[in-house]
Amino acid sequence: MEKTYNQTAIIPIENGSVGSPKGFLAGGQNIGLRTGRPDMGWIYSETPASAAGVYTTNVFQAAPLQVTQDSIAEEKKLQAILVNTVSANSCTGQEGTDNAYTTRKWMAEHLGIADHLVGVASTGVIGMQLPMEKMEKGIAAIELNDVKAPFEEAILTTDTKPKHLAVQVEIDGKTVTIGGACKGSGMIHPNMATMLGFVTTDADVAPDSLSLALKSVINKSFNCITVDGDTSTNDMVLLLANGQAENQLLSEQHPEWQTFLNGLEIVCQGLAKFIAGDGEGATKLIEVQVSGAKDDHSAEVISKSIVGSSLVKTAVFGSDANWGRVVCAMGYSGERFDPSKVSMALGDIVLFQNGVPIDFDEEKAKNYLDGNTIVIKTILGEGNGHAVAWGCDLTYDYVKINASYRS
Amino acid sequence: MEKTYNQTAIIPIENGSVGSPKGFLAGGQNIGLRTGRPDMGWIYSETPASAAGVYTTNVFQAAPLQVTQDSIAEEKKLQAILVNTVSANSCTGQEGTDNAYTTRKWMAEHLGIADHLVGVASTGVIGMQLPMEKMEKGIAAIELNDVKAPFEEAILTTDTKPKHLAVQVEIDGKTVTIGGACKGSGMIHPNMATMLGFVTTDADVAPDSLSLALKSVINKSFNCITVDGDTSTNDMVLLLANGQAENQLLSEQHPEWQTFLNGLEIVCQGLAKFIAGDGEGATKLIEVQVSGAKDDHSAEVISKSIVGSSLVKTAVFGSDANWGRVVCAMGYSGERFDPSKVSMALGDIVLFQNGVPIDFDEEKAKNYLDGNTIVIKTILGEGNGHAVAWGCDLTYDYVKINASYRS
Repeated sequence: MEKTYNQTAIIPIENGSVGSPKGFLAGGQNIGLRTGRPDMGWIYSETPASAAGVYTTNVFQAAPLQVTQDSIAEEKKLQAILVNTVSANSCTGQEGTDNAYTTRKWMAEHLGIADHLVGVASTGVIGMQLPMEKMEKGIAAIELNDVKAPFEEAILTTDTKPKHLAVQVEIDGKTVTIGGACKGSGMIHPNMATMLGFVTTDADVAPDSLSLALKSVINKSFNCITVDGDTSTNDMVLLLANGQAENQLLSEQHPEWQTFLNGLEIVCQGLAKFIAGDGEGATKLIEVQVSGAKDDHSAEVISKSIVGSSLVKTAVFGSDANWGRVVCAMGYSGERFDPSKVSMALGDIVLFQNGVPIDFDEEKAKNYLDGNTIVIKTILGEGNGHAVAWGCDLTYDYVKINASYRS
Repeated sequence: MEKTYNQTAIIPIENGSVGSPKGFLAGGQNIGLRTGRPDMGWIYSETPASAAGVYTTNVFQAAPLQVTQDSIAEEKKLQAILVNTVSANSCTGQEGTDNAYTTRKWMAEHLGIADHLVGVASTGVIGMQLPMEKMEKGIAAIELNDVKAPFEEAILTTDTKPKHLAVQVEIDGKTVTIGGACKGSGMIHPNMATMLGFVTTDADVAPDSLSLALKSVINKSFNCITVDGDTSTNDMVLLLANGQAENQLLSEQHPEWQTFLNGLEIVCQGLAKFIAGDGEGATKLIEVQVSGAKDDHSAEVISKSIVGSSLVKTAVFGSDANWGRVVCAMGYSGERFDPSKVSMALGDIVLFQNGVPIDFDEEKAKNYLDGNTIVIKTILGEGNGHAVAWGCDLTYDYVKINASYRS
């Protein structure tokens, strides 16, 4: 559920992104992978930054993820990230792995930094090798101080809009900025999706604490969204902290640790909601709130079951207050509960109370469902567990986009 | 995988259905629940039949399922089944339960048999109470010897065609007939779907063995199909055996027990494939064969993950040989395996071998995908586990049908 952050103010930065924190530069350009739009993005920190990552749980983990993990393993730091579109460099065998290492080397040489300070990420068609000639020329053409296109535009695939934000919090009397950008769109499902997320901060954070922070907010953000239930081979979220805000080193022992976590959660949750609302073909953002579950885990499972239901998603698309599909999706989530204690509302319109349907104003419900953001609230009578999950409606355009993605 | 039934011949009966076995009558009629097509179906056995059922795993289990389980619990027998469309009588509280018991009573009185020998089933909109006045008149109008419409037509919802078949096997030198009819269409997913299945046989089978037989074949048939991942509140498969074939009582000890199981599997698998191929909006049947898995369970999980993937389903709709989505769906199934030992083919066209893509004839693959039945074969290098699952493509019409089901 929405938290109130009483302790310290969290101030949004207008048009903020991964370049907002001190000492970070980010950009993108067209290197000829596709026509008419930027297709390669990069992030650079003036100094090596502490780095943490989370990666897809898919057995087929794409080459760039292996290479990035290898980079971070060296000294838990990154100074640059290179992202290409069009080829996902996934299921590409030894050649794909070699190529990912080669692009890492090219990027490192171009920037004059060590290989292991570069992370690489790819998104696009599975099984296509990286177009190495274009990659080499593209990397050579990167100019840190001549940004041809915004980073957040250069990493998009079927996304319809760039996704980025940044916030500021105060820690040790210093202004700490946290910025993020991401891409999503298809193959989006809890536990990392066809989704690349990049978060930067100028906070000084101990590497192990950074990893802990990322893992803790990921479960309340990127792992709470679903577009189509497909978990991709390329999902990755990277978090870089370069310390240029000059706060005291942050760790769980720091008195303002929670302030940092809150800011990070706001950024990650914001990015995740952007992805859910811009799922392939989506016209509406769906937010599912579950409360009164046995525990938080149970609430999470139920919320993801609802937001992942094709029948719920099509009903929302059609502005049909078909609450039966919502309770049905709760019922097959795998969680056990007393159905006679379940209530459900669309926004503030209660449709189902204590296990039975109640009369409601169909017209009012239809008007509500014609909006851009649909909140489905369910309340169980089992305990205090709660969770929120985000997704989108299932539309003709989802089918259209995915019936011929490769063509 | 396809079994060869060497032991005894299994002979299909032309236009066979639940009325094919000796002593069974079945029919349907319009009772005014919807216009222009039959909306209520019934099955009747001249003598009480041993009965077994499997039911949805959804927490919200519809009233008719509770009543039918109550009926069978009495003496493991049924003599008649009543099926209505339009109202699913699910999430309808105590009133819904009372109504289901009342329709059971009306049916029993009309046929002059005990209440507990009647099973009831409903399909349609969740949360709508049964239209009791129409149900009462409808039941009173049933004439066992004047069938107004085929049973298999009267139970359909968004199905585009009736689904039924029957086969004959020889047991103890007697001809045993097994017939079945079902409805499917939306909310179809392993572990019982919005799916009603009815199987009848004139074999004489011990009630406990009948239940065992049903459970064993269900995992190779109805539980291997998916349309949209939604498991409904109303799913039920009932199996009735009235003994009129005059074979020796069948149980696991009978030397021809396996013959009976084989015939039952053929019927259930045939019905399941009819449902998968006629999923809402479907234009193609997808059959996923997984072999070389660690064990059969692992193969089942992987096959269902592939056949349930929205991205695989849309690619098949668009005749796009996007093998990357197939291996991706294997990878997020939750099963662990060595990705470098995975191969994959569409029919006989190999697209992916030992973890890497191989060159294939795109035109030939497209032609294959333009067919009505698409077989996706995947081979792992883990062991001897195998499984088959069935589903359908995801199309514009699925979205169209489900965006306004209630309207």
